[in-house]
Amino acid sequence: MKKFMDKDFLLETETAKKLYHEHAERMPIIDYHCHLSPKEIYEDKKFRNLAEAWLGAGDRCGDHYKWRALRARGYAEDSISGPDDDYKKYRQFTDSMPYFVGNPLYLWSHLEMQRYFGIDDVICPENADKIWENANKKLETLTARRMMEKLNVKVVCTTDDPADSLEWHKKMAEDKTLKVKVYPAFRPDRALNPELPAFAPWVKQLAAVVGRQISSLKELCGALKERIRFFNEMGCRLSDHSLEVVYYAPAAYEEADAAFVKGLKGEKLSKDELDRYKGYILTFLGEQYAKLGWVQQYHIGATRNNSKAMFEKIGADTGFDGMGDEVFISKLSALLGALEVQGALPKTILYCLNPRDTYALCVLAGCFQKEGVKGRVQVGTAWWFLDQPDGMKQNMETQMQVGLIAQSVGMLTDSRSFLSYPRHELYRRLLCNMLGNLVEGGQYPVSELERLGKIVEDICYNNAKNFFGFEV
Amino acid sequence: MKKFMDKDFLLETETAKKLYHEHAERMPIIDYHCHLSPKEIYEDKKFRNLAEAWLGAGDRCGDHYKWRALRARGYAEDSISGPDDDYKKYRQFTDSMPYFVGNPLYLWSHLEMQRYFGIDDVICPENADKIWENANKKLETLTARRMMEKLNVKVVCTTDDPADSLEWHKKMAEDKTLKVKVYPAFRPDRALNPELPAFAPWVKQLAAVVGRQISSLKELCGALKERIRFFNEMGCRLSDHSLEVVYYAPAAYEEADAAFVKGLKGEKLSKDELDRYKGYILTFLGEQYAKLGWVQQYHIGATRNNSKAMFEKIGADTGFDGMGDEVFISKLSALLGALEVQGALPKTILYCLNPRDTYALCVLAGCFQKEGVKGRVQVGTAWWFLDQPDGMKQNMETQMQVGLIAQSVGMLTDSRSFLSYPRHELYRRLLCNMLGNLVEGGQYPVSELERLGKIVEDICYNNAKNFFGFEV
Amino acid sequence: MKKFMDKDFLLETETAKKLYHEHAERMPIIDYHCHLSPKEIYEDKKFRNLAEAWLGAGDRCGDHYKWRALRARGYAEDSISGPDDDYKKYRQFTDSMPYFVGNPLYLWSHLEMQRYFGIDDVICPENADKIWENANKKLETLTARRMMEKLNVKVVCTTDDPADSLEWHKKMAEDKTLKVKVYPAFRPDRALNPELPAFAPWVKQLAAVVGRQISSLKELCGALKERIRFFNEMGCRLSDHSLEVVYYAPAAYEEADAAFVKGLKGEKLSKDELDRYKGYILTFLGEQYAKLGWVQQYHIGATRNNSKAMFEKIGADTGFDGMGDEVFISKLSALLGALEVQGALPKTILYCLNPRDTYALCVLAGCFQKEGVKGRVQVGTAWWFLDQPDGMKQNMETQMQVGLIAQSVGMLTDSRSFLSYPRHELYRRLLCNMLGNLVEGGQYPVSELERLGKIVEDICYNNAKNFFGFEV
Repeated sequence: MKKFMDKDFLLETETAKKLYHEHAERMPIIDYHCHLSPKEIYEDKKFRNLAEAWLGAGDRCGDHYKWRALRARGYAEDSISGPDDDYKKYRQFTDSMPYFVGNPLYLWSHLEMQRYFGIDDVICPENADKIWENANKKLETLTARRMMEKLNVKVVCTTDDPADSLEWHKKMAEDKTLKVKVYPAFRPDRALNPELPAFAPWVKQLAAVVGRQISSLKELCGALKERIRFFNEMGCRLSDHSLEVVYYAPAAYEEADAAFVKGLKGEKLSKDELDRYKGYILTFLGEQYAKLGWVQQYHIGATRNNSKAMFEKIGADTGFDGMGDEVFISKLSALLGALEVQGALPKTILYCLNPRDTYALCVLAGCFQKEGVKGRVQVGTAWWFLDQPDGMKQNMETQMQVGLIAQSVGMLTDSRSFLSYPRHELYRRLLCNMLGNLVEGGQYPVSELERLGKIVEDICYNNAKNFFGFEV
Repeated sequence: MKKFMDKDFLLETETAKKLYHEHAERMPIIDYHCHLSPKEIYEDKKFRNLAEAWLGAGDRCGDHYKWRALRARGYAEDSISGPDDDYKKYRQFTDSMPYFVGNPLYLWSHLEMQRYFGIDDVICPENADKIWENANKKLETLTARRMMEKLNVKVVCTTDDPADSLEWHKKMAEDKTLKVKVYPAFRPDRALNPELPAFAPWVKQLAAVVGRQISSLKELCGALKERIRFFNEMGCRLSDHSLEVVYYAPAAYEEADAAFVKGLKGEKLSKDELDRYKGYILTFLGEQYAKLGWVQQYHIGATRNNSKAMFEKIGADTGFDGMGDEVFISKLSALLGALEVQGALPKTILYCLNPRDTYALCVLAGCFQKEGVKGRVQVGTAWWFLDQPDGMKQNMETQMQVGLIAQSVGMLTDSRSFLSYPRHELYRRLLCNMLGNLVEGGQYPVSELERLGKIVEDICYNNAKNFFGFEV
Repeated sequence: MKKFMDKDFLLETETAKKLYHEHAERMPIIDYHCHLSPKEIYEDKKFRNLAEAWLGAGDRCGDHYKWRALRARGYAEDSISGPDDDYKKYRQFTDSMPYFVGNPLYLWSHLEMQRYFGIDDVICPENADKIWENANKKLETLTARRMMEKLNVKVVCTTDDPADSLEWHKKMAEDKTLKVKVYPAFRPDRALNPELPAFAPWVKQLAAVVGRQISSLKELCGALKERIRFFNEMGCRLSDHSLEVVYYAPAAYEEADAAFVKGLKGEKLSKDELDRYKGYILTFLGEQYAKLGWVQQYHIGATRNNSKAMFEKIGADTGFDGMGDEVFISKLSALLGALEVQGALPKTILYCLNPRDTYALCVLAGCFQKEGVKGRVQVGTAWWFLDQPDGMKQNMETQMQVGLIAQSVGMLTDSRSFLSYPRHELYRRLLCNMLGNLVEGGQYPVSELERLGKIVEDICYNNAKNFFGFEV
């Protein structure tokens, strides 16, 4: 029996241990996609207690994974995302811990206690008070920045709207005490969704930021281009798009502009109009990114706010999203193909939320490579609900079999919490274990072990550094 | 090498053995969804020989899994579902047994011999006659009720049409000698399918049962409500719906009623009309179930009667159904969301037949939780074609990673045969083995083993008892 | 630690080793579906060096798997499919080898060196020159035919257009020195795609071959029937269809003929017209195949030429195809059902490219069995991108759980390279390992091991021989 979550956690062979301890473990973290708050990083957020740091604090920046599990346990929303007492919330969580058997929360929570707080206790009702006291004491000095430093985080990319002033990024750029590089990432989702009520207000907001009116698609594109240039000056190296459904059709400017105007007026858009509008603007954006050498990310297949009742009550991004099952490969292929024909296909990372699509996505990525770039289009690591042992193993297995995992830019957290960095460790342990199994199973020669160690280091750090071109 | 199907069958670690033998094995069975015949239970069906008990007897109540395998072997239909000699049928099956390597039939058949008949022989041509004689001798006293008692079955829910008189259930309720609790379950599929020729005759049948005409949707709903109340009095705690395709659109009463009337007349209904009709009636039914605290089951994605030739020849439910691949998540989400907004979403178990959808379904279930209920909406165990080692392992793995398996209501047989109860054992062994692997792999602390044993007992029995609220 | 790719490669248990070495390894190969060039077999192609034999030689007959990997590595197309120097191409490949960790190319390449060339060196930059010299020396005598003989290939079926004269097959039939049986296979894809520009020219070509005009669907069918008879005389026992999307609707002759005429004129066809045309012609063809006892293959779900830019540059079949994600089960079911009702459903092998569909496909196949045939409709082995350890294991696992793997006709290469035959070995090793795990895990009795060995031999060779009816 292996010891519970000790130093060789998840490492089943000697080769796996070697790869992990001599290579993976030593590499810093580049977290190129997350939802941390630039303000909280700049202000070096201090947490009032473990409940706030761990579960969120009655605001939307909580940990949805934990919230979802607590809801499934039947607790009241007030004591999950609501105004109830912190200790009560904490105890609900620790008392539930044994029932999270097999769920990544069990592993994450223990790793979080071990790596940030140096607390090795099993999380269970009997240890709850002891952990509460010890962790709260640590939190007196364990601020947001200390958390990142403790986990050896070198680069963080936040997620920012084109209309964002990036004021906190500006302040961070000037802050000599900040040891982690924090860059913005460009997330123009609002420009892509003329079917939503938020569209027209957002266009107005963007117009205010660039200081001129936006009443045509041409003007929107001009404003976006300006913001892209600004983001680029602020160190931005990548963009991000949430494509819940993949819309695409080749479009003349006039067609796309007509859809834009309808969206601005709040008129209903047909599926075909959305195909053309979104196709146009994704192509336009891809072109801009390609010019600057940026990487674009497509996050495909989330379904938002499944529970309308809870959306009404506590809003979006609170743990009620899901996985879609729409057909999308042919439209995505056409979109990437159109960008490539124009010579405007940037480096691209594709993510699908539904694991049933990982194989098709990996194979599609392999069709859009480019001279001089390693893995120009590639599939990202297991995303969101898939960011757990089974999901990551499936993702890595597929990347190995129909792609080149040696060229993967590796792990990211996609998280809203400063306590999520051990997920990089989990990824690295699983990676080393899989590679170790290949060696010990006679599928990769032990004589190549030094090279394999280097490949591990690449996946953990160097590939991301080079692919995005971060100055570290 | 492990011994063939001995007491530690499928249990790879000491922890797995401990969890199984000290916890899982001791728990009774609640079979909350099956297709056993209430009449046969009441009459304590006696089988003329092993062919009848094992393979079915020339009627539709045979074991489709076995029939399908025999068809693939190339045998004549007459000697599968038809009038041929029992011994011939039996020998075809036992002579084919070696060729079922890797198929669940191999495990099921041996478990059936071991658990009901105390026969430990390998099933193969050489042992066929010996087994035939021994088993037939046992069948002289091994009746339907004895079979259920032998396997420690405490509760069985049959599957019953709203128009069913439940006469056998009435008799069973009064039969003091019946040791297993047998309850009806409400399966109003015929009310849901106005596009089928069977619709109008069934409405007429239901009208006769309630003793008044049904010429509007309102009247249909009234009749269903009356039958639900009657089923409830008879101990029914759950309903069941086969949604081959998920239809749903919000509908005004008038729209749904118009579709009802067209269905009654046998007129063709558009996809949109079906969306509205089915959406209306599923919402109505959910409301009734919620009021009574019932559990509703949605079985999603079967395709029926793929072989038209065989359907013409021997009818439905004879082994020619399959797995669909339709897109359905957004409609299902809208349906559950609409029920929730009305405060009428009952406890719900979702099953998908195509394993590619299990992940999305588990995540969707997690969006519809409720204060005071553990796992208000949850995903069921591996269904039908997936009720085998690979299917169950995938299902449990997914439930663990994006749900809380500790709260699962566990296994059911969905079977037409009294000999299917060892499938509960197979499920329990696989469950204990997976949990054992977590402990022995350092992913769950051995110090929590007593709690884990209790969780195993919950999944095997207590969760179902509490979720459905059975009086046992 | 297991030795790197030694004689017990991938065989984890003693039973697996026994099954492989005493059964699987001894069986000859029937490669019933591949894309080898009949001309090259007849002419006994000699390769100028290892680059040509291994990677292709600046023409389209290269190994796409290797090309794709090299593109992902960022090499220039000229040094992949283009005119660059052979040694440069070779070195790019060998220098990249360490980065193929986990990809089937790593295993395939080493198996190819071991089995054909007797070279056991690890492929890596340090050994590149040594391997180049040794292999090139071997290639002086290691011609196409010698390659096939060395790997114990007994039967090969090429892939041939109905308009093909089969001139090389004629010559081979008369060549007493040819030790492998080479048969044509009938691939009428061009008859099926009236929506493509190639349709009308191809019809003209076929007309020339049969020596009469083809201006109606009836005439097309007549010509196809004639060619089928001709192929049959040439030893053809099977056909092959690439159904990128499954089109099907029941069609009157007039409807299908109207679509044919539109296709001939290059007019645009609606989805519904394609459903009817393709449904008609697939039904017609199935009828012909059934009469002759042929096997038909449906290859479902490829997406072609995803990169339009590369298609423009170097044409089709060069490594830019992918996996589709379309819904197809209900149409496929209707097509098979219609053939069966007419008594015209031939023996059929179904392949899906997207692994998410394997389960549904296996279950569907089980609905269309026939008296006197073992596995009349069955699912094929893991196809194309899935022809690797993970893909094959998933495929076999599914075939076991919802089908009868004992009746599978087993492996094929689907390859354009004479060096791909070790893929049969890889398949056999994985198969024996899975079966060995069943025995050693207590799921299949060791007392049945001799029978299991015979089953292995069947899957490797006898099943294919009998199913296709090859004269060997």
